[in-house]
Amino acid sequence: MLIVPERLIADLVTAEAAYEAVEAVFAAMARGDARNFPVVREALGHADALYGFKSGFDRAGLALGLKSGGYWPGNMAKGLTNHQSTVVLFDPDTGQPSALVGGNLLTALRTAAASAVAIKRLARKDAKVLGMIGAGHQATFQLRAAAKAHPFERMVGWNLHPEMLPKLAAVADEIGLPFEAVTLVQLGQQADVIITITSSFAPILKRAQVRPGTHLSCMGTDTVGKQEVESGLVAAAKLFTDEVAQSITLGECQHAITEDLINEAVITPIGAVINGDHQGRSSDDEITLFDGTGVGLQDLVVAAMAVERAKAAGVALEFEI
Amino acid sequence: MLIVPERLIADLVTAEAAYEAVEAVFAAMARGDARNFPVVREALGHADALYGFKSGFDRAGLALGLKSGGYWPGNMAKGLTNHQSTVVLFDPDTGQPSALVGGNLLTALRTAAASAVAIKRLARKDAKVLGMIGAGHQATFQLRAAAKAHPFERMVGWNLHPEMLPKLAAVADEIGLPFEAVTLVQLGQQADVIITITSSFAPILKRAQVRPGTHLSCMGTDTVGKQEVESGLVAAAKLFTDEVAQSITLGECQHAITEDLINEAVITPIGAVINGDHQGRSSDDEITLFDGTGVGLQDLVVAAMAVERAKAAGVALEFEI
Repeated sequence: MLIVPERLIADLVTAEAAYEAVEAVFAAMARGDARNFPVVREALGHADALYGFKSGFDRAGLALGLKSGGYWPGNMAKGLTNHQSTVVLFDPDTGQPSALVGGNLLTALRTAAASAVAIKRLARKDAKVLGMIGAGHQATFQLRAAAKAHPFERMVGWNLHPEMLPKLAAVADEIGLPFEAVTLVQLGQQADVIITITSSFAPILKRAQVRPGTHLSCMGTDTVGKQEVESGLVAAAKLFTDEVAQSITLGECQHAITEDLINEAVITPIGAVINGDHQGRSSDDEITLFDGTGVGLQDLVVAAMAVERAKAAGVALEFEI
Repeated sequence: MLIVPERLIADLVTAEAAYEAVEAVFAAMARGDARNFPVVREALGHADALYGFKSGFDRAGLALGLKSGGYWPGNMAKGLTNHQSTVVLFDPDTGQPSALVGGNLLTALRTAAASAVAIKRLARKDAKVLGMIGAGHQATFQLRAAAKAHPFERMVGWNLHPEMLPKLAAVADEIGLPFEAVTLVQLGQQADVIITITSSFAPILKRAQVRPGTHLSCMGTDTVGKQEVESGLVAAAKLFTDEVAQSITLGECQHAITEDLINEAVITPIGAVINGDHQGRSSDDEITLFDGTGVGLQDLVVAAMAVERAKAAGVALEFEI
């Protein structure tokens, strides 16, 4: 069995590599070659923690396993990140554990990759302005991945706590993208592509604020009750997601579903667009919306990639189990 | 993070130690101090494998984590055991992984311990003859644990494939218990305590074959469709289990439930007997039946014990993650 500790991940898995792995597994999911298993997610009643696993099997790439971990709100005070993730991979031919992989950075990379896949596949080719709603740790990953997926000319950003925007602006500066802090109205007026990456429980972006032709990657909603955009905006958009079952229950589409504004038949797995089975955007006037809920297979394929690269580089730690 | 590989377990966790840990966590479950999370169990569509996890949190013992693995029927031909289990433990205060523990032997020990707890708590004090239905690998663990839990004078055994009985007889001989291969009718007539440990999908033992006062530990049924004893026998017995929710859906009680012979209210968690909240057996004429379905918390507490003992003995392998 191999171990790839957290500190090695940054050198092993780039944003581009995560993009490739996530795009391939979305395609495999849509072909029926890869499948996520039911998610376990439990409030522990200890340390205010949420704990659980996402798991699945990619028959195409032979990645089997789980990401386990969760959210410990008291960690920051201890010098640890609040989100804790570990991936365990298994040999699908024998069931023996094959690798244990630090999953914190991988989670950020695979989440950003999903949004970037959607931007590449659904945004207008002439999109110039990237809008970002949210300015936390994950927003910087989103920005880096989006900038690699599409040649944006500039970006605009909004955050509930504007004092956090300079950190995002610094990353934009680093990758050569002019940055401007704006109001939500300005953001909707200027952005051709909007990424929402917050932990909001109430709609931030309204339907009236979004222009025709905009693409949205809504990446923050992964839990029952969370919401980043008005359900009317969801209903007005052509809808895509990583996994329909999650989208309608715990993703951004949950509210439009419960309000009967849409039904699940109108939500397309992004893998179908990748596979060429769905055209994706069909006009420059359409609003496209990708509901990124986050699936276990994303974690497994980037972790499997980290293991392969660690093996090739001779840096994986080997031990018996 | 620590690793306790499979080869170390035999020296770290005895049947007695597993008994203590399992009894304590059954008690904690009945007090509401420990909780199993939903089980994930999936047919992979690859290598005919079943794969999944059992998980939970013991707030009393602070054991958090999962056992993952499953059943790979082609393993035997490769020199591996078909059942593959690995336990991952987490620090409940931070969510960081704390240990990875080989789970194959631990699974056998914790399953045998559950049956032994039930025998100790529910069998007549004057029980003399142990009956075993099943003679596979797990049956030998059941025998060893049962013999430690109660002073049996002799044992009788039955197996669908009688050519497997000598292996069980050899273990009986080793622990000084006279062994006799018998028919099912003879087994019911002679045994005061009966353990069923098969992978049967049809009832083996009939109600008419079991005398008043017998205790049964039914340990083989852990999946929808499996069945070891006639549902009429279940209906005639005073019923106990590790976890009621599993007992009625995938344990031995599932058939009596679907046939409307019993309702779940008549099934008592064995932890309530351990805690003194339920009297257990109330007469020498009662048939008591323990439906051992197997819960994740059993795995976690024996694995946590292995880790503590490996630390104390200085044999755990430490590595960064």
